[in-house]
Amino acid sequence: MPVCEQPLVQRVLIMGLGLMGGSLALGLKRAGFAAEVRAHGHRESSLALGVANGVIDGYELDLDTALKDVDIVVIATPTLIAEQQLLTLLKKLPKENAPVITDVASVKGNLARAAQSACGDMPANLVLGHPIAGSEQSGVAAAKADLFNRHRVILTPFNTTDAKALALVTAMWQCCGAEVLQMSVEQHDVVLAGTSHLPHMLAYTLVDMLAASTAVTDVFRFAAGGFRDFTRIASSDPVMWRDIAVANREALLEELDAFEGHLKRLRHAVDSADGAALIDIFARAKTARDAFAKELAERSQDSTE
Amino acid sequence: MPVCEQPLVQRVLIMGLGLMGGSLALGLKRAGFAAEVRAHGHRESSLALGVANGVIDGYELDLDTALKDVDIVVIATPTLIAEQQLLTLLKKLPKENAPVITDVASVKGNLARAAQSACGDMPANLVLGHPIAGSEQSGVAAAKADLFNRHRVILTPFNTTDAKALALVTAMWQCCGAEVLQMSVEQHDVVLAGTSHLPHMLAYTLVDMLAASTAVTDVFRFAAGGFRDFTRIASSDPVMWRDIAVANREALLEELDAFEGHLKRLRHAVDSADGAALIDIFARAKTARDAFAKELAERSQDSTE
Repeated sequence: MPVCEQPLVQRVLIMGLGLMGGSLALGLKRAGFAAEVRAHGHRESSLALGVANGVIDGYELDLDTALKDVDIVVIATPTLIAEQQLLTLLKKLPKENAPVITDVASVKGNLARAAQSACGDMPANLVLGHPIAGSEQSGVAAAKADLFNRHRVILTPFNTTDAKALALVTAMWQCCGAEVLQMSVEQHDVVLAGTSHLPHMLAYTLVDMLAASTAVTDVFRFAAGGFRDFTRIASSDPVMWRDIAVANREALLEELDAFEGHLKRLRHAVDSADGAALIDIFARAKTARDAFAKELAERSQDSTE
Repeated sequence: MPVCEQPLVQRVLIMGLGLMGGSLALGLKRAGFAAEVRAHGHRESSLALGVANGVIDGYELDLDTALKDVDIVVIATPTLIAEQQLLTLLKKLPKENAPVITDVASVKGNLARAAQSACGDMPANLVLGHPIAGSEQSGVAAAKADLFNRHRVILTPFNTTDAKALALVTAMWQCCGAEVLQMSVEQHDVVLAGTSHLPHMLAYTLVDMLAASTAVTDVFRFAAGGFRDFTRIASSDPVMWRDIAVANREALLEELDAFEGHLKRLRHAVDSADGAALIDIFARAKTARDAFAKELAERSQDSTE
């Protein structure tokens, strides 16, 4: 894990001290990225716990006070609140010498649209980002300094984005051990709808359906390790995922429809006992999934060398 | 793990030496359940590997030779082959003093129907069974002596089943550290369709769909741990799962249809940005899944005490 010889910035402000914000704060403090990492939020108990656990150096409940002398503001609240907070920040902060604003939300389109309609164009100091990491746990108590280590962070800069702001946010994530990549807002939202948002919808739907069945006791009594892993993401925070589903509505609906079509084809193969068609689907999936697992394993090995 | 003071039977024959059959053989040898554990199969390389790895004491390629002086025959081949093998065994074995026949297949209905139509009634020496354990890996090389330790095994006896045969199969699994439970064939197939067969269909369908998308490289490049766990079961053996899907066709179709209905409701909530409905689904699922994870953790803790 990289360590900064001297702080790159004076003060980082985390807005919303949960699992993501707390883990970023811990990572930045460990790397010595900032002279001071502070947080702003509404739940004082979480902020006080953050100070007690050494996650942050201090906190403010008042936003205006919190924003004083800040170099980077990281919005780390659930997706829909992040949108409101971004609008508040864009209104409050000066146009000149404004701090860099970034975020960790799982959807980028709604934030980009909000900023564009508020400012007429994407502000130069705004660098939208999304670390591809997390946990079904939530809250600052679950924060880990290495949550982003060996993980990817996607930044979605515009041609109006200030190069220095982009470099600073990139350095911030690299300090936490992350690999930083860039793509467009649209590409990000489509890729994440398929690989993350759709799987969460499927896991939530499956568990909700089984829990409602009359054989409920048996259902969970006779489920094994495969079921535990398959449904792990159904333990994720409902508010966070409601926000993601609403914010990435269009891309998610497309993925849901595509999935329904594929599931119909599978159903037809089962109904007609078409073994060859079933083998085709299962074998293609196995090949792709084995390759993915191999790449993940290699990536994790590379990073430990 | 229990160990037998002296062997309960002379000879166990495993038909089909893969992950399940091999792990059972290892478990039985470790516990000293049988004086001899042998295997029958068509692929001599697997059988020879089983001997070389100490998984079995010996093997036969000829079934008639393999069946000589056997006390228990365990059919451990994929579901549809298991059905054919069961019919072969029922034809070959004598009606008097026949060895106990059992199996490890994931579907019980097709085997019960096959036996009933071949014999007019369920044979007294046939005890259908299903260990709720496994792995996305397959083959005798992946066999582990503790695969069934702390896992549940479901037996589906009929009122015609011989009590001694049932007790012997129960003891066989208990020797491997398993908890043995009984339920009807019908209940087994419905519960497994929901908790195991449906999740496999969903994981296979999702990975196949994403692998076919044009953004294929990105799809897997930006997937994280949640995706890895959710899709782990899509690395399972395609032949095994084709057999299960065909053998448990009716129960699986019902679960697929129920899932489609639930997914439509979720889609409607996303489409209409109905946050309250989304929270309802997600929160119910999280509650059920958290309770399941807690029970699994406690069960595993109980067993280590």
